[in-house]
Amino acid sequence: MLARDLAEEFPVVTVDTPALDAARLLAARHLPGIVVTESDGRPKAILPASQVLRFVVPDYIQADPSLARVVDETAADRIAEKLIGRTVGELLPDKPARLPVLHEDDTVIEIAALMARMHSPLVAITAGDRIIGVVTASHLLELLCDR
Amino acid sequence: MLARDLAEEFPVVTVDTPALDAARLLAARHLPGIVVTESDGRPKAILPASQVLRFVVPDYIQADPSLARVVDETAADRIAEKLIGRTVGELLPDKPARLPVLHEDDTVIEIAALMARMHSPLVAITAGDRIIGVVTASHLLELLCDR
Repeated sequence: MLARDLAEEFPVVTVDTPALDAARLLAARHLPGIVVTESDGRPKAILPASQVLRFVVPDYIQADPSLARVVDETAADRIAEKLIGRTVGELLPDKPARLPVLHEDDTVIEIAALMARMHSPLVAITAGDRIIGVVTASHLLELLCDR
Repeated sequence: MLARDLAEEFPVVTVDTPALDAARLLAARHLPGIVVTESDGRPKAILPASQVLRFVVPDYIQADPSLARVVDETAADRIAEKLIGRTVGELLPDKPARLPVLHEDDTVIEIAALMARMHSPLVAITAGDRIIGVVTASHLLELLCDR
């Protein structure tokens, strides 16, 4: 079985996608992260949901979460406003988590080995420069445990 | 809104759970990871699906994934056999990813701050020593973006 047979549809955004759209996609699909491509569709990075939180939670609270107790509900309401007018590219950390990429002709074991080595919950599968889908670690386990 | 209002049911295993059961749970629920407790129920760690793959994929293939091409399908079929007779405790890495834990009385912003700081897709919520559920980063984003 090859990567192309395993690749599942998975939401993909580009570095130009509005940050709020990406946050809502993560929320609506209950995803721990989302695949980000360059403007031209080449694979770029994974944007974890926790990174979006890093962007919106004020630095002084991240440094000392006990200060969160003194933030009133009104301030909490305004937290997501930080995303307005921003793009996904601006949300990415300076050194974003590398997106593991394999080709549609690669095998199940190659995918498993790459996930294992990179501690990654997913691998993007490409045909040429284009992402045709992703394989998740849980999907691979399903396949390996059902044999 | 407090942690207890947000905590969702999430599968939890103990260090004594058979490894194959944990792998099948990750697969069936399409989870990127699972919460692991000590035998007595105290929070212990997160077991990522990619760590299960680290355990089953032979070391020589992880070191050089191109060798995966020479593994025949029969060998691939036997990969999950490594899990038989093992426990979740044996699957955990020597230094497992710390499980972020907050108390049921903690606030939304405290949860967001801890996830942001620990780059974690989830936080376990406890009442006393017992885990009553988890809050995921995507659930928090849903809450923050809908306000």
